[in-house]
Amino acid sequence: MIKKRLFTPGPTPIPESVMLRMAEPIIHHRNPEFGEILTRVHENLQYLFQTKGPVVVLTSSGTGGVEATFTSLFSPGDTIIAANGGKFGERWVKMPKAFGLNVVELKVEWGKAPTADQIRELLKKHPETKAVYLVHSETSTGAATDVKTLSEVIRKESGALVCVDGITAVGAHEMRFDDWGIDVCVTGSQKGLMIPPGLAFVALSQRAIAAMETAKLPRFYFDLRKAVKAWEKNDTPWTPAVSLVIGVDAALQMLRQEGIEKIWERHRKLATALRMGVQAIGLKLFSETPSYAVTPVWVPEGVEWKAFNKIIKGKHGITIAGGQDDYTGKIFRVSHLGYYDALDMVTVMAAIEWSLAECGYKVELGKGVGTVMQQLM
Amino acid sequence: MIKKRLFTPGPTPIPESVMLRMAEPIIHHRNPEFGEILTRVHENLQYLFQTKGPVVVLTSSGTGGVEATFTSLFSPGDTIIAANGGKFGERWVKMPKAFGLNVVELKVEWGKAPTADQIRELLKKHPETKAVYLVHSETSTGAATDVKTLSEVIRKESGALVCVDGITAVGAHEMRFDDWGIDVCVTGSQKGLMIPPGLAFVALSQRAIAAMETAKLPRFYFDLRKAVKAWEKNDTPWTPAVSLVIGVDAALQMLRQEGIEKIWERHRKLATALRMGVQAIGLKLFSETPSYAVTPVWVPEGVEWKAFNKIIKGKHGITIAGGQDDYTGKIFRVSHLGYYDALDMVTVMAAIEWSLAECGYKVELGKGVGTVMQQLM
Repeated sequence: MIKKRLFTPGPTPIPESVMLRMAEPIIHHRNPEFGEILTRVHENLQYLFQTKGPVVVLTSSGTGGVEATFTSLFSPGDTIIAANGGKFGERWVKMPKAFGLNVVELKVEWGKAPTADQIRELLKKHPETKAVYLVHSETSTGAATDVKTLSEVIRKESGALVCVDGITAVGAHEMRFDDWGIDVCVTGSQKGLMIPPGLAFVALSQRAIAAMETAKLPRFYFDLRKAVKAWEKNDTPWTPAVSLVIGVDAALQMLRQEGIEKIWERHRKLATALRMGVQAIGLKLFSETPSYAVTPVWVPEGVEWKAFNKIIKGKHGITIAGGQDDYTGKIFRVSHLGYYDALDMVTVMAAIEWSLAECGYKVELGKGVGTVMQQLM
Repeated sequence: MIKKRLFTPGPTPIPESVMLRMAEPIIHHRNPEFGEILTRVHENLQYLFQTKGPVVVLTSSGTGGVEATFTSLFSPGDTIIAANGGKFGERWVKMPKAFGLNVVELKVEWGKAPTADQIRELLKKHPETKAVYLVHSETSTGAATDVKTLSEVIRKESGALVCVDGITAVGAHEMRFDDWGIDVCVTGSQKGLMIPPGLAFVALSQRAIAAMETAKLPRFYFDLRKAVKAWEKNDTPWTPAVSLVIGVDAALQMLRQEGIEKIWERHRKLATALRMGVQAIGLKLFSETPSYAVTPVWVPEGVEWKAFNKIIKGKHGITIAGGQDDYTGKIFRVSHLGYYDALDMVTVMAAIEWSLAECGYKVELGKGVGTVMQQLM
């Protein structure tokens, strides 16, 4: 008997209490009971994003949420800058191009983050820029972007909107939507929000809402004007994924009870401890500016990723993520995003040690775990 | 955010898939769908107990299941021998006395198990003995009784029925009801069967069934003749706890899939590894004949049980059990009964180390965990 334990940066583990809430008999979305739920969800989302403005709930993946921002805020030919340092950054280059936007790509080496100087330079070169898209936590590389600093730079240097892919950052990294002057921030349900995939959440500033009025790209389902109008009445424009909204209501109440600052701090601590642990057994980290959501680690020399993954999954029930594109087979990624505590880091560290040892890697069993334990004591 | 993790010898953790099955809308117990479930449950219970005879399902705690065996098999004044080496052994001395049976108590020091010589001697002294009650795994002390050997002795020396409290043993320790010549074996639902409390399961031999015919103690709800008659039609005499039966159906299917021999071996391995781990950090085991269901450990000198328990529970979310009676505050008990895997032993060992260290006990963090890992690699 092997328990299944998920250490991937989305889907992330679902708390048992949330699973059971979602298993309750379905209710109708025009029922007053559902209205109460959605009202509470809207309020708690504002807390999560640290904003007084709207955070709308869309029934789609996180990618759908980002698409809604492109089609709702811009017109054909508009220029946007998109930072691309991984699989998701790359997607936010391809997607706006598909809608006829003029995309200035800021290419960043995998594992690194865009700098203030790079952004400043591009904004000077392209004064017509309508928005800058940043990836707060790039899941494919584990690199975190300093959104606070870059947002300040963008605000100071231009009138461009600050648009943030917060998909694996919201609920893991400090992010203060209003204070930091962010205009758009998107997250998904199967990340820091700890429920299954199917919902996207989009926070919008007054500047973003104003931009929607002149935006000319065709849109309907993802029209954020409709979403904001419905939000004002604690409603949704289309039938929402009811059981997922019920789940996110339970999850948001858990988050609220823990407190957002404590949640950010928990992610920082868990990520840091795991990193010390893997380094204590001689492994090397991939990213230079590590995100607190996910830790990518180089597969050590002499170890085959496929063999390692077969053991950690088949023998120990642990699902971690592999590398993508050029880094397939070269790195593995361990998540600490969402419903994880200190003992989970002990657990995954032990499974990493066992699996590497079985692949012939020399490791003193318990050394990484001991380091994790010292860090989290 | 701290996850709650249960390491008590009943209730034991409930698999998520079983919880969700029990959360499904209730069905009627006279519905054919429920009949199918009960038929499968009956068949899988025979596999669990390794018997071709009836294993009846009672809606009661395990204690109720044991009471059913006393009131259904004996008459006032009948002599029974009851081995008492802990809280549960003690209960099986008090209970039959309450029904007017003549109880010969075989007192065993806590932490030890009754021996073949002791049983042989008592049977010689009391040739009128109708039954010998043994506790396979004494939860209060972590001591296991060698049921196989003692059953042979009882069978050879007398015509007494071999009655086994298997409450924390079934599903953890090797137990072959038919092959070992056992006549009565009882377990509860919240133990090796991994569901909430509320059901008892009683296996009965042909000799036990015959004894019911002449037994004169008054009984009704717990009349095992009624239970066996209903069992023959894959039914129950009274309304059963439907959702718990649905849960045990799911749990038994999991057990069947893993295989009973593998389950026994898993418990042996996990218990052995945890014991090596606690000893590696200088702790001492309480029991001389340890059960694979639970490990009682002496609280080390200089550590206050209450302070230790407050930390392991409050800071690490881990519920373990304390000592009982004379051993309150002197020992703690860690369970490996039911839904546990290797990484769970790593987890509880880490929490023990952290909590002891915080109580001022000198421990090299990770040493016990490393030992557990080496054992379970």
